Amino acid sequence: MYSIGIGPNLRKSAYFDATVRDGVRSFSVYNHMLIPGHFGDPDAEYDRLLNGVVMWDVAAQRQVELRGPDAGRLVQYLTPRNLSKTRVGQGRYVPLCDYDGWVINDPVLLKLADDLYWLSVADSDIHLWAAAIGQEKGWDVAVSEPDVSPLAIQGPKSEDVAAKLFGEHIRNFKYFGFAETDLNGIPLVLARSGWSKQGGFELYLRDSARGAELWDLVKDAGQDFDIGPGAPNDTERLESGLISYGADMRLQIHRANPFEMGLGKLVDLDGGFDFVGKNALARIAQDGPARRHTGVIIAGDPTPPGHQVPIMSGNEEIGFVSEFAFSKRLGKNIGVGLIPSEFDPAASFDVQVDGARYSAAQTSVPFL
Amino acid sequence: MYSIGIGPNLRKSAYFDATVRDGVRSFSVYNHMLIPGHFGDPDAEYDRLLNGVVMWDVAAQRQVELRGPDAGRLVQYLTPRNLSKTRVGQGRYVPLCDYDGWVINDPVLLKLADDLYWLSVADSDIHLWAAAIGQEKGWDVAVSEPDVSPLAIQGPKSEDVAAKLFGEHIRNFKYFGFAETDLNGIPLVLARSGWSKQGGFELYLRDSARGAELWDLVKDAGQDFDIGPGAPNDTERLESGLISYGADMRLQIHRANPFEMGLGKLVDLDGGFDFVGKNALARIAQDGPARRHTGVIIAGDPTPPGHQVPIMSGNEEIGFVSEFAFSKRLGKNIGVGLIPSEFDPAASFDVQVDGARYSAAQTSVPFL
Repeated sequence: MYSIGIGPNLRKSAYFDATVRDGVRSFSVYNHMLIPGHFGDPDAEYDRLLNGVVMWDVAAQRQVELRGPDAGRLVQYLTPRNLSKTRVGQGRYVPLCDYDGWVINDPVLLKLADDLYWLSVADSDIHLWAAAIGQEKGWDVAVSEPDVSPLAIQGPKSEDVAAKLFGEHIRNFKYFGFAETDLNGIPLVLARSGWSKQGGFELYLRDSARGAELWDLVKDAGQDFDIGPGAPNDTERLESGLISYGADMRLQIHRANPFEMGLGKLVDLDGGFDFVGKNALARIAQDGPARRHTGVIIAGDPTPPGHQVPIMSGNEEIGFVSEFAFSKRLGKNIGVGLIPSEFDPAASFDVQVDGARYSAAQTSVPFL
Repeated sequence: MYSIGIGPNLRKSAYFDATVRDGVRSFSVYNHMLIPGHFGDPDAEYDRLLNGVVMWDVAAQRQVELRGPDAGRLVQYLTPRNLSKTRVGQGRYVPLCDYDGWVINDPVLLKLADDLYWLSVADSDIHLWAAAIGQEKGWDVAVSEPDVSPLAIQGPKSEDVAAKLFGEHIRNFKYFGFAETDLNGIPLVLARSGWSKQGGFELYLRDSARGAELWDLVKDAGQDFDIGPGAPNDTERLESGLISYGADMRLQIHRANPFEMGLGKLVDLDGGFDFVGKNALARIAQDGPARRHTGVIIAGDPTPPGHQVPIMSGNEEIGFVSEFAFSKRLGKNIGVGLIPSEFDPAASFDVQVDGARYSAAQTSVPFL
């Protein structure tokens, strides 16, 4: 166990003080910001996520704001997904690719107005990417990072907590729907979203000075539902088939394209619009992707080593498992990875962890 | 004290296993990669840096490679510093700005060939920035992150260690000079550089599979000089007036321009070349920068809180100290920050730390 150096080079979340007070025990770093890892009882946090309600400081999920007459033009150029039917108040999962078609982030897009969008980004500096492209195109759009700090409430009882805070009408929110609102005068955007498949909401706080206040309002409203603090959960995300940019794919490590990651249906090559990586993705679509995303079930009891592990077929390294974990619900070690497209879907292989080999079978995702 | 979550979303350095074996106790995160913070005895690491020799895993200082006929054109467009006289084998400190003139990184540039450059970057994704600009310009240059992992040896005895490893000729290396070489067949670039003012070298390992091997070669060669592991040292960098991108300035927090940071002499507005932010920087040069970088000496015994603190003049918040630390050599608390340009250089002010006020005086940097 190693400590984390908490210094001025890492940003602190708007909820940092509140999470420290409430017992955070571990941090990671995401978008140059500290993000809680757990609060000392990972099992309880997992159980709350599945059966109750948990609250997460996900302020490190930073927003990249595109504002101006050409904001819509820029955002469509940044993603292969067709946004022509996206309405104000709708969120969209939008993979972003570079000019070679490799995924460089997979944000949720929030369309706040025809000339105002937020990209709620995973862990890479899309702020720089979007600003460079907008400026070099000569488009009339300002790119910035606004003062926005998401707080997630996730789990089957999260709707009850949100209803208690905001009123019964929020039960009608569609998935990824959002609205601008406030809570005791705290400005925020409320969205039905979050990085789990257990249902929930994200409160996009718009005034970082009021982080502790919002944290406590949510905590108080959740008392009747036994709410507790937690963090995005690796086991649940594997069970649910959620992709993690940075773990499952990172430009500098994996060079994965959307077709390989199972996101091909979001790539619109025939939509009549141009986007970054279009030529490369058209070629890949024609030739077929080299690899495919797969679930794996691993026999035995390997310990997750904190990094990806090789997939071996005989003596050949044919791919990797980016992350695995023991699923209590399934009673199995489950993981995800990339293997060659032509590899027999019925064949098994080995996963190599700390020098030992463990037999593994392919399966589709999600697991649950 | 909080632990750090070591998972697949954070990259591990080529020296990770070696640093764990040699007792690393704390990590930070830089460019999405774990970087050692200390090895359990910060005082000994500071003393070795000042009086002996210390070895640092700085692989998180990633390289952004620009390769192709237009590589030189792109790198000159990325920085306000005039590179027309930079020769192959010369390093250069090159601030990078965005289109508004705000600093977005301050790498060391290595010119390996007329069509091949590395930017050894601080903590932001210049890979994305440079790739977007090169592509949108339509220039013939490939931007990538090569397999390069710097290891630094720093301190007055580092030259002896380098000479033992590479031969006596390295004593003739000029500051920021570098050469491609190898060590027992391990390919690397050797540079006289490093993030301290105690002298030293950086070994840019070009094969991450051989990280532990290189680490041990350096460790063995350094035994006669009592080498020990360490990490970039906040106290020494403050004493020496080195800027830390991320702490002293970060686009999303500080919006600082090169003139404010004391880097104005590196901005060439009359060099006859275009660069990102030129118009904005010309305006700032004409109007004068709003703030200036200053050293501060703080009375009393405040504890560094791990984040920047406000500078108060009476009841007005006029600026901030980005970082401060107790300098054993000076017997004082020293720090750096930004204050309004027009503020009387002879006037004192208060620094507010955890609700208490401490009187502080301005001073020039470096302190030593």
